[in-house]
Amino acid sequence: MDKHLTHINEAIRLAVENVCNGGGPFGAVIVKDGEIIACSGNTVTQTNDPTAHAEVNAIREACRRLETFHLEGCAIYSSCEPCPMCLSAIYWARISEVYYAATREDAAESGFDDSLIYDEIAKPVGKRFIPFIEMKVDETTKPFRIWQEYEDKTRY
Amino acid sequence: MDKHLTHINEAIRLAVENVCNGGGPFGAVIVKDGEIIACSGNTVTQTNDPTAHAEVNAIREACRRLETFHLEGCAIYSSCEPCPMCLSAIYWARISEVYYAATREDAAESGFDDSLIYDEIAKPVGKRFIPFIEMKVDETTKPFRIWQEYEDKTRY
Repeated sequence: MDKHLTHINEAIRLAVENVCNGGGPFGAVIVKDGEIIACSGNTVTQTNDPTAHAEVNAIREACRRLETFHLEGCAIYSSCEPCPMCLSAIYWARISEVYYAATREDAAESGFDDSLIYDEIAKPVGKRFIPFIEMKVDETTKPFRIWQEYEDKTRY
Repeated sequence: MDKHLTHINEAIRLAVENVCNGGGPFGAVIVKDGEIIACSGNTVTQTNDPTAHAEVNAIREACRRLETFHLEGCAIYSSCEPCPMCLSAIYWARISEVYYAATREDAAESGFDDSLIYDEIAKPVGKRFIPFIEMKVDETTKPFRIWQEYEDKTRY
């Protein structure tokens, strides 16, 4: 358990450091074979990137470093329970384990409330407060047809 | 409705073009005041970035261009219904409207099945197939405390 404590405390330390650097109170580290291979704070405001949550930043950095788009065998340690965007990124990246300290309820108490997005994802498309509008057009499935026919594709 | 058709067809055209460039069959454009301000295909495999879905790429580009981390008043047109990661990114970016062509069912028929992630998000933390493990540590809420005390913060 000690190694897990070391890594989660590093994620928390990064989160605190990140606040002092003008960013949000979140940090994450990615570990492979016992070694930290990527780490980041949340840099949404510093980099004008609403997707630059700590976990997403760390996933991007780990993939750059390993030159892969999959992170099987890696664990991510986050100072806070991942939001739905980061949770989904963790699945797309095929990370193997997720450890976190603060819960979404702890975050909500400090004004970082993901529950709205958790609720919206579960709703039927027509019931969300951002309108999601399906358009019926002739070539809807053309990209998938081309993909299936294309021989040099890299599956992911 | 014509302008919506123009933009959704551009997203589909980008998706087809992207396949021919070695990427996945997805494209997205972001429109503000009737003008396309950002567009992208899915570049997961070309850039080794599992978060580089078309919508996320377009959001990042639009934010860079407008020098902001919020996209109120913008619409996104995607060749396919956004996955949960992109949906969440759309909420974090505060995009106002979402138009899409293919549905998640169309995508699943071509081997791009997001339903697993939709299902996993809705599950309690302990029931997911990637283990999500809450760690009880002393400094869990320290980042939020520091954030609340920090005077120079940029809220988001």
